[in-house]
Amino acid sequence: MSSVFNAQDHQWMTRAIQLARQGLYTTDPNPRVGCVIVRDGEKVGEGAHLKAGEPHAEVHALRAAGDKARGATAYVTLEPCSHHGKTPPCAEALVKAGVSRVICAMQDPNPLVAGRGLVRLQEAGIETASGLLESEARALNPGFISRMERGRPYTRLKLASSLDGRTAMQSGESQWITGAAARADVQRLRARSSAVLTGVDTVLIDNASLTVRAAELGLPPEQAALAAERQPMRVVVDSQLRLPASTAMLSLPGSTLVATTRAENEPAAIALSATGARVLSLPSADGRVDLAALLPWLAEHEQCNELLIECGATLAGAALRAGLVDELVLYMAPTLLGSSARPLFNLPLDQMAQQYRLQLTDTRQLGDDLRLTLSCREETD
Amino acid sequence: MSSVFNAQDHQWMTRAIQLARQGLYTTDPNPRVGCVIVRDGEKVGEGAHLKAGEPHAEVHALRAAGDKARGATAYVTLEPCSHHGKTPPCAEALVKAGVSRVICAMQDPNPLVAGRGLVRLQEAGIETASGLLESEARALNPGFISRMERGRPYTRLKLASSLDGRTAMQSGESQWITGAAARADVQRLRARSSAVLTGVDTVLIDNASLTVRAAELGLPPEQAALAAERQPMRVVVDSQLRLPASTAMLSLPGSTLVATTRAENEPAAIALSATGARVLSLPSADGRVDLAALLPWLAEHEQCNELLIECGATLAGAALRAGLVDELVLYMAPTLLGSSARPLFNLPLDQMAQQYRLQLTDTRQLGDDLRLTLSCREETD
Repeated sequence: MSSVFNAQDHQWMTRAIQLARQGLYTTDPNPRVGCVIVRDGEKVGEGAHLKAGEPHAEVHALRAAGDKARGATAYVTLEPCSHHGKTPPCAEALVKAGVSRVICAMQDPNPLVAGRGLVRLQEAGIETASGLLESEARALNPGFISRMERGRPYTRLKLASSLDGRTAMQSGESQWITGAAARADVQRLRARSSAVLTGVDTVLIDNASLTVRAAELGLPPEQAALAAERQPMRVVVDSQLRLPASTAMLSLPGSTLVATTRAENEPAAIALSATGARVLSLPSADGRVDLAALLPWLAEHEQCNELLIECGATLAGAALRAGLVDELVLYMAPTLLGSSARPLFNLPLDQMAQQYRLQLTDTRQLGDDLRLTLSCREETD
Repeated sequence: MSSVFNAQDHQWMTRAIQLARQGLYTTDPNPRVGCVIVRDGEKVGEGAHLKAGEPHAEVHALRAAGDKARGATAYVTLEPCSHHGKTPPCAEALVKAGVSRVICAMQDPNPLVAGRGLVRLQEAGIETASGLLESEARALNPGFISRMERGRPYTRLKLASSLDGRTAMQSGESQWITGAAARADVQRLRARSSAVLTGVDTVLIDNASLTVRAAELGLPPEQAALAAERQPMRVVVDSQLRLPASTAMLSLPGSTLVATTRAENEPAAIALSATGARVLSLPSADGRVDLAALLPWLAEHEQCNELLIECGATLAGAALRAGLVDELVLYMAPTLLGSSARPLFNLPLDQMAQQYRLQLTDTRQLGDDLRLTLSCREETD
């Protein structure tokens, strides 16, 4: 495999990555993938995977290229698949179309099939190369990659706080402290997620719906409508099955999973199931649902790629302590709620050595507010 | 007065503002001022005020221009002075040099002399205009303007916290949580300030020196040396005169003022005075030094323009509640200290309606940390 890429290669792969982003809100549970086909320095076809069950990016691009694919180079953001899924393998399609060179940004993250697509292409005499703009390509699909490589979703913990790290008054009094731009951004985080996880108290107290609402996404109408077509699964962590079957959330579009430590044949569980919700009994950890058991379950049984956690201080603290948060997305409003207000995390630490050091990866102003994105993958200091 | 400015005018005034910044760390207690002299579309002289007692910007620029000033336009970031201070009035110098047009960014903020310099120029037949890039020019001298317009310094409250708004562990255990770039930035904030104010506990517990150290400014060596030549006055708020005369700070370069509610002839006060420190007796507010009395005193007696407050949660909360903070500069380290750690402000609020809404004016990444600048001038929500 060659690994020397020139400026042209970079340019076309950049375009392929741009195309892949078109599927940001819609390909789930599939990865977002883009493809560009170039012959004699000219683009002859391009495409993106847009929806599970519909053609992959390579197929769209090959169709657009037609006969011009013969002898061309295909730039793909992810190694072409070699297996029959809902659609025939893309590696075969590229061979059939007669392309002479395939460059991909990254290999398939599934360790069981990684490299197979490339081998199939090489066997057909096609020149292949991998690793061009790999980190950009990986950033397209943190969830799909996490599911394949680690058997668990990529988890984002979304919180909103004041400058002084508070979320509500001591009494529980609260109100939106962030503005419309920040709230639209949260809607887009939901829309790209496979599932949204919260605690039962957030549902009971805040009457959270966790749905994606087209009008609030801040996207062009057509894109917004497509994005809102697919509702992320709602996951309510409810150790003691306190969620009433009459909860509004249970009658909203999309499905709800209630994760509990109680048995699935208890009356409360049966009542919830009767609404169409699913009840999942899991082991407990310290009397609560063991999140470390829930996450792999979501990956395995629900093909959950990106999991958005929207919750209160207790669940946020528990997820962080359990090492289950990959990314913290903190919306910070330019306000001070004072020293008796409620904290972001229930996270009692005694010593500086116990602090959780994160890594700031992005800062953005959204209206009057600030959005900080932090990677939690570093070890505790 | 004409108020129509063209692109050329903007360009030259932008240069004058750039020149004025050369005095950022050194003109105190004078304002930072820049001047450009232009004839026939060509710059014939420029200058900046660099140090109190030394020539003003206009004089430097006129000297550089020499005979070419005749018939030229002078761009000045502040209305030329018309009074004899440590140096002769600049308005006279401009008249003498024969300039035909003077454009200034803003009038003198001292209500007693505002407009006089322009009138003097007009009387000599010089065309004048004011208000070009006024907000940029005002931003050069927030302290000088505040002192002239409000009779008090422009106050910056500098704090450093974790993402969750904490400064130290409950036990008091603390350590620098921000990195070298943030600490150098604090040094530069000190260097531009007339005075740095803190509470006696910060001096006693943290052994704070509040000095400007050339090597830590992160500036080119020559500029750093100049900046560190002038030490901001240290102001220690010490209601009960607990500061020992043996405190290290009292023997450091620069002067120290101890603000207290005790009498200036008490033994503790006399002991402090013997070290060279000054003791200022002020009225009390709730048993503490009344900050609202201290600030005008600093403006009136010490020509204090920019006042940097570096303190703990108690003084920070008191200053905020008293409405004495113009700007909050918050250095935020990407770490979580947890929910039992110490808060940024001692600021007990009961209701959302009491929250302090601020306005984010700048966000900057400094190394791994974030610096947020917020204006506190808005009313409480």
